[in-house]
Amino acid sequence: MSPAVLPSHKAAVLYGQKDLRIEHRTAFPPQRGHAQVQLIATGLCGSDLHYYQHGRNGDFALRAPLVLGHESAGVVTALGPGVKNLKVGQRVAIEAGINCATCNYCKTGRYNLCKDLRFASSAKTFPHLDGTLQDRMSHPAHLLHPLPDNCTFDHGALAEPLSVIIHSSRRASLAPGQSVLVFGAGTIGLLACLYAKAHGASHVVAVDINPARLDFALANSFCDAVHCLAPAERPKGSEEQLRRASETAASVLEAFKHQQGFDLVYECTGAEPCIQMAIHVAALGGTVMLIGMGTRSTTLPLSAAATREVDVLGSFRYANTYPQALAMLAEGKLEGVEKLVTHRFGLDETRRAFEMMGKGVDEQGQMVIKVVIGTGEQ
Amino acid sequence: MSPAVLPSHKAAVLYGQKDLRIEHRTAFPPQRGHAQVQLIATGLCGSDLHYYQHGRNGDFALRAPLVLGHESAGVVTALGPGVKNLKVGQRVAIEAGINCATCNYCKTGRYNLCKDLRFASSAKTFPHLDGTLQDRMSHPAHLLHPLPDNCTFDHGALAEPLSVIIHSSRRASLAPGQSVLVFGAGTIGLLACLYAKAHGASHVVAVDINPARLDFALANSFCDAVHCLAPAERPKGSEEQLRRASETAASVLEAFKHQQGFDLVYECTGAEPCIQMAIHVAALGGTVMLIGMGTRSTTLPLSAAATREVDVLGSFRYANTYPQALAMLAEGKLEGVEKLVTHRFGLDETRRAFEMMGKGVDEQGQMVIKVVIGTGEQ
Amino acid sequence: MSPAVLPSHKAAVLYGQKDLRIEHRTAFPPQRGHAQVQLIATGLCGSDLHYYQHGRNGDFALRAPLVLGHESAGVVTALGPGVKNLKVGQRVAIEAGINCATCNYCKTGRYNLCKDLRFASSAKTFPHLDGTLQDRMSHPAHLLHPLPDNCTFDHGALAEPLSVIIHSSRRASLAPGQSVLVFGAGTIGLLACLYAKAHGASHVVAVDINPARLDFALANSFCDAVHCLAPAERPKGSEEQLRRASETAASVLEAFKHQQGFDLVYECTGAEPCIQMAIHVAALGGTVMLIGMGTRSTTLPLSAAATREVDVLGSFRYANTYPQALAMLAEGKLEGVEKLVTHRFGLDETRRAFEMMGKGVDEQGQMVIKVVIGTGEQ
Amino acid sequence: MSPAVLPSHKAAVLYGQKDLRIEHRTAFPPQRGHAQVQLIATGLCGSDLHYYQHGRNGDFALRAPLVLGHESAGVVTALGPGVKNLKVGQRVAIEAGINCATCNYCKTGRYNLCKDLRFASSAKTFPHLDGTLQDRMSHPAHLLHPLPDNCTFDHGALAEPLSVIIHSSRRASLAPGQSVLVFGAGTIGLLACLYAKAHGASHVVAVDINPARLDFALANSFCDAVHCLAPAERPKGSEEQLRRASETAASVLEAFKHQQGFDLVYECTGAEPCIQMAIHVAALGGTVMLIGMGTRSTTLPLSAAATREVDVLGSFRYANTYPQALAMLAEGKLEGVEKLVTHRFGLDETRRAFEMMGKGVDEQGQMVIKVVIGTGEQ
Repeated sequence: MSPAVLPSHKAAVLYGQKDLRIEHRTAFPPQRGHAQVQLIATGLCGSDLHYYQHGRNGDFALRAPLVLGHESAGVVTALGPGVKNLKVGQRVAIEAGINCATCNYCKTGRYNLCKDLRFASSAKTFPHLDGTLQDRMSHPAHLLHPLPDNCTFDHGALAEPLSVIIHSSRRASLAPGQSVLVFGAGTIGLLACLYAKAHGASHVVAVDINPARLDFALANSFCDAVHCLAPAERPKGSEEQLRRASETAASVLEAFKHQQGFDLVYECTGAEPCIQMAIHVAALGGTVMLIGMGTRSTTLPLSAAATREVDVLGSFRYANTYPQALAMLAEGKLEGVEKLVTHRFGLDETRRAFEMMGKGVDEQGQMVIKVVIGTGEQ
Repeated sequence: MSPAVLPSHKAAVLYGQKDLRIEHRTAFPPQRGHAQVQLIATGLCGSDLHYYQHGRNGDFALRAPLVLGHESAGVVTALGPGVKNLKVGQRVAIEAGINCATCNYCKTGRYNLCKDLRFASSAKTFPHLDGTLQDRMSHPAHLLHPLPDNCTFDHGALAEPLSVIIHSSRRASLAPGQSVLVFGAGTIGLLACLYAKAHGASHVVAVDINPARLDFALANSFCDAVHCLAPAERPKGSEEQLRRASETAASVLEAFKHQQGFDLVYECTGAEPCIQMAIHVAALGGTVMLIGMGTRSTTLPLSAAATREVDVLGSFRYANTYPQALAMLAEGKLEGVEKLVTHRFGLDETRRAFEMMGKGVDEQGQMVIKVVIGTGEQ
Repeated sequence: MSPAVLPSHKAAVLYGQKDLRIEHRTAFPPQRGHAQVQLIATGLCGSDLHYYQHGRNGDFALRAPLVLGHESAGVVTALGPGVKNLKVGQRVAIEAGINCATCNYCKTGRYNLCKDLRFASSAKTFPHLDGTLQDRMSHPAHLLHPLPDNCTFDHGALAEPLSVIIHSSRRASLAPGQSVLVFGAGTIGLLACLYAKAHGASHVVAVDINPARLDFALANSFCDAVHCLAPAERPKGSEEQLRRASETAASVLEAFKHQQGFDLVYECTGAEPCIQMAIHVAALGGTVMLIGMGTRSTTLPLSAAATREVDVLGSFRYANTYPQALAMLAEGKLEGVEKLVTHRFGLDETRRAFEMMGKGVDEQGQMVIKVVIGTGEQ
Repeated sequence: MSPAVLPSHKAAVLYGQKDLRIEHRTAFPPQRGHAQVQLIATGLCGSDLHYYQHGRNGDFALRAPLVLGHESAGVVTALGPGVKNLKVGQRVAIEAGINCATCNYCKTGRYNLCKDLRFASSAKTFPHLDGTLQDRMSHPAHLLHPLPDNCTFDHGALAEPLSVIIHSSRRASLAPGQSVLVFGAGTIGLLACLYAKAHGASHVVAVDINPARLDFALANSFCDAVHCLAPAERPKGSEEQLRRASETAASVLEAFKHQQGFDLVYECTGAEPCIQMAIHVAALGGTVMLIGMGTRSTTLPLSAAATREVDVLGSFRYANTYPQALAMLAEGKLEGVEKLVTHRFGLDETRRAFEMMGKGVDEQGQMVIKVVIGTGEQ
């Protein structure tokens, strides 16, 4: 590997719904306080897929061509003026959000809430800030976190979704000895399981409707037990839906002899019935942590939360998580986390990767969890 | 005043819906660890009114005659064996809930969540534990909190609803310099205003649909500003209701030039539109504290909470609040709190007090806030 | 008042021990993100006095001429490019420390611990960053906090020492209803008293060896009670000193019938006997907050802290305190705080101000608390 | 195994310094709320050894014959009236301290600070409460914590020193990703290492003067690295001692390329030089947790703690730790913890066990860590 400032580099650029083009772009030297990085591994996220499939993600539509990707690691290839904490050739994980550093949220350590934050690969701010699905990019040096020796580039990419879990776990005051239930056994849910165990949780249960995901979770000891929800007929109204959620929750607690409920429930599906169940399976005085919200309007058994002092919390991205994420990955605290990467493509194949990801299974019918785009040599 | 153990005492006993009878009962000497108290002042609470009007309070129906009342202060008249922290003649506030002291909730300081807690005047547990609308009662000595010299018996009674606010404020991490909005300007909402100010909140706003309550709040400097909601036509569906809540919230923020939202919102009405608005008027990263929940099912703009890291918390009664409540009342930290007591009746007039309370105004058309039953000399 | 960019401005520059000169300096337009401020009021701090008297403050000696002063407020006179949150003519308080915004301490909200922080008026970093004892200065706009309408420039200057107390109180988890004892009734100690009261503390006691300071505190209701320590003969050794501290602490607790101790003790003297007493007067499970440490080596009754779970905490400057400080000053939460400003001088008289401050009394024998240098019209 | 209420049982009773006698005592049926336990395994603690060697432990001298032992597990043999959470034959760990349940410390969850707490095997309260070095004892049922299936009786005994570490770690806000240094590699220090790792600490270093202990720690992966302190000549005074501590601390940080210091330092030796070093090896903004204090007077580089916001905290026993301790032991979170039990004796051999423990090595010269007295079948 010989990193160097290239005169041009390649990027996978989204022009609109399903219109992804591989382009060559001119590489500029990094400005003051920035460094140029050769990107080696980028994990694809659900939001990337939304942009690819719909040309938008929720409220945020493309206003110009955009490079996706924000779970990424690479190698420093050039330093802008004033950069002291890095050197050329250093392996780094890229923290994608650039915050303003001067608002009250930034100054109090909650920079994920900064209103002027520009997040690489998001169409929220304009001009858009391009993401990591390219060969080279410049980024502020303080957001390039050195990879410990025993971290791979994949680890560096996984530090991003892990950061989501670290942040939400801090907000939820996860503590050793707690019992934990996780709705949704995708990348985020599985990381929630692994992280809770690494944090000393005493009993971790994963719940999903997909038995293959649960088998994977159990086979790899990502959790202590699993529960597969039966796919339900559409309820006739919100009353029936709430009643069903309450009954299903009771049966889950019964199944695990956990009648008193779980200390902490991570809700990683965004599905209304799961959010409702989350409140019921939480212990008196416990916590429901909402990750990855979808719908605007949700009907809740709210008094069952409020009068039982079950806190209903959300979390948005992360702040100050990368050093912890990388330290824990380096120490092997999340055993088996590498297995989350089920598929790998070259940058030129990004379109094919998105198509497969959209199906949820590959051509051999194998389950897709995390897809990594390898934009350079490992 | 010469307190003494009487052979009999008088009690206002609820036999069923609107069937309240004044009875004479035998007084027994207090058992080990208990003390007998002559009750002097008892505030009537919304839950007392529910029992009186309906013979039940939510899920909990009378199963036997019950003495209501749990906001109370009195004078110690006799000590059971082993009681050392009190003496006969001492003025005390009565903390109404008797917890088990051995479950995990009790041992970790969250005894309000104790499943075996017996709360005086509640029909939840059976046999019911009688409340304070009587002349004499025995109660565990450690739940009888000495009244500081400059606390009146009314202060002692008000320490109960104040405890609700102290507890919820601790859970909400109320901090000096925060901006606070309170939905509902009844006793609880007004105490939330007063307490937030005593705790250093920098801007406290009360919101209600009743202009008389808001006038009272402002005239007595319980808050810094008020906002009167217009009574709305019934919305045509939950979508319209949510949209209206969002619009009204925006207009409230506009009115107070508080576009960034309030750090902490106390929701003291239990009304769905207010809960919805609460989420929208909370600042990014702020908190909604739900007090006094009513309905089982609530439609919420949940993603507007979760993705903005607005914590949605509830609180149930209180734990470890009486010493703080009495210290603050004694120091005059809640200036004007006495004005909350708008009406006063003798024990024999309890039925009349409930009837007036149910109307919300007295015979002269004056607003009723807190009604105190004086069961003895002041 | 017509603020304008002047071609030159005046500064009080310290060249060495007691060598303070009034100079004219060229005024440069503010750079990107900065604003120019006309300084109106600057409070003199103990560290300023040390520099004046000794040419150094602890480990930090002057390496070049330095403008002192960092408790300050003024009026914006010019905006550098990119400044949006301010306008010319706006009244502001100046937060003196410029942090790096990219290290872990800055990103987690503890920017007071930033190793690259440059603090105006301190000789720690080189080249030194000049302080506020001048007519004009440029400063990052995000560190210029708008003064609310009912804040004076003095309030803006007092926001700095108040920030010290807010920061330490947050670290000490000051809570309403707590009992508080403060060692040292100078500016910092008196602000600790005032702030604890504004935060709902139920009983606040000030302790000093100077009866005049205590009289002032009590007369202005800055605290609920005072205790004057007798000046002691020099102890014969550390054993005797520890024994005396323990005995004196016991007599203080006896005097206030506070045998169980104080929940929170602010130590604002830096004197070894007071630090020792602080541990003894703290309640079981309470907190000692060390403010303004002096000596390197201190003999402590450490096991009396550790086995009683008395936390011994220090605090260094402040972070994220100005908005709260100004909000509370604007709301009149610290009643009488203006009286802390006992003396006022023009910029040309700065040397005379320091000389008087060093004596502790003015020519009429009046106690000096806070001296403000008025560098412009009020 | 057939537990039953025996007419008599055997106890190891300390009558005075080194005067330990095996006696037969009458067994009484358990009172209300209590259960009788057949004790199976009791770990010996340093405080037990002090009582054995000196007839006292610090300030607390024997006032009557006393049964030592408080790290214990056994089998329930009889239930007193009203006990519902246990059944005969159930395996339990015994929490030795009986708190009053009604004081403010008990009610707020800090029952370890209860002034009326009676701790089995301690001579602090009188009449003394006998400890667990006997065949049978009665104890409050809520302090008998069910052993999970995959916990041995040794695990149940180890739950006690582990509780000390859980409690202190909660107070110190141990968090995943932190770097941790532990002074003292005895039972407590080694448990601190193991627990920090189980809690996600990223780098755990043990420091001792005994290379055998450090070899043991490293060989069993209780920590990530070790540092052996050279035994030092006695310093000539406190100044020299402080200087040495500072220099040694610097060399430790250098050795681990941890120049920025450790986030959390557990001080488990009680030795003055280690406490001094602890402050210097703690990171800016870090924490020193004092466990097992000895001397009354300690000379500290206190300003190096205070101005760097290094919190100096102590901890006393534990509260609400057993459920977490047992859950983590059952889940195998503290891998290899069983190896701490290096020696095992029968109840009749207790005297011999104490003599060996006093020497620190057994007859074969093997290091002694934890000695367990097996008072019944395993």
